[in-house]
Amino acid sequence: MPFVRISLKTARSAPERRAIADAVHRALGAVDVPVQDRFQIIETCGDDMIVDPNYLGISRDDGALFVEIHLSAGRSVDKKRALFRALAENLEQAGVEKRNIFAHLVETTLENWSFGDGIAQYADRPPAHV
Amino acid sequence: MPFVRISLKTARSAPERRAIADAVHRALGAVDVPVQDRFQIIETCGDDMIVDPNYLGISRDDGALFVEIHLSAGRSVDKKRALFRALAENLEQAGVEKRNIFAHLVETTLENWSFGDGIAQYADRPPAHV
Amino acid sequence: MPFVRISLKTARSAPERRAIADAVHRALGAVDVPVQDRFQIIETCGDDMIVDPNYLGISRDDGALFVEIHLSAGRSVDKKRALFRALAENLEQAGVEKRNIFAHLVETTLENWSFGDGIAQYADRPPAHV
Repeated sequence: MPFVRISLKTARSAPERRAIADAVHRALGAVDVPVQDRFQIIETCGDDMIVDPNYLGISRDDGALFVEIHLSAGRSVDKKRALFRALAENLEQAGVEKRNIFAHLVETTLENWSFGDGIAQYADRPPAHV
Repeated sequence: MPFVRISLKTARSAPERRAIADAVHRALGAVDVPVQDRFQIIETCGDDMIVDPNYLGISRDDGALFVEIHLSAGRSVDKKRALFRALAENLEQAGVEKRNIFAHLVETTLENWSFGDGIAQYADRPPAHV
Repeated sequence: MPFVRISLKTARSAPERRAIADAVHRALGAVDVPVQDRFQIIETCGDDMIVDPNYLGISRDDGALFVEIHLSAGRSVDKKRALFRALAENLEQAGVEKRNIFAHLVETTLENWSFGDGIAQYADRPPAHV
């Protein structure tokens, strides 16, 4: 159910992009997303990504990365904190500095997802994990 | 009012992309979107789209396609089911297998849209169709 | 906190794209976004952007531009009107006609943002401006 878009400022190799996508997906385990529930896009923006270099006192550079996560509503604030923490820890292992990770969540409802075949699967069978 | 982003894994010709966009737009008729209310983007992602090959028991391959639809809140669950069904039926006619269609809705409010001229048109005149 | 995606139909030079991004960011001042709170992506879509040429009686052409703004909920309708007005006025100065600007807002909650370091900064310290 999460739909994830990862936007890179600086170009990275295909294996590096894959490692970043893997790291983001593993982090979703912190909010109980099943391993198989994976639908991601990675894009490379170059100068067409503009990032403030120190908003809120955090120093950012060309290693900056945006992570946009669409998921069903219902996670607690503590779960969300755990997700952001896991994103940072996992991405650090994939070569992205924590200071460079800007992430945000967009929440929707369970009946707003179709995983294929033209059916709103979660409207019929709400998943255990949300 | 709907804003629609269609993401393809495998590259397709311009006429094929247009047919896909047309199919998605026609499906919005199921939730009473006027024919002229059309604002779409199509993108091609290649290996930068990662799709689980069988989450929820649905087999997906490189023909996978994501459809992200932003629209005002207020549609019933039944209308949303009809939209997903129409998406699958129309896209099948445009050469996309139903099993390969991952779609989701992001809902906003009527005053959150400007169709031009710097005005929030629906804040002043709510449309008949939502 | 706003995350902004600007989509152009027709290609423009890097300085023009930068002027457009600057104009959009300045407009966010209308809803009290701090100058430093800037996280933007600009993309160029060409024929992969489809725009109705006259929905709601507004004439649009290849100069069309979409502005998608993700921000925390809480702004009044009047503030949102002021934002759309400012977007149009600022973008006009950057060479985009008002009739060609399609903009929409996606609202989230304060705890849904991480500005770096794996922390949900606004969950701990809500900002003054929302």
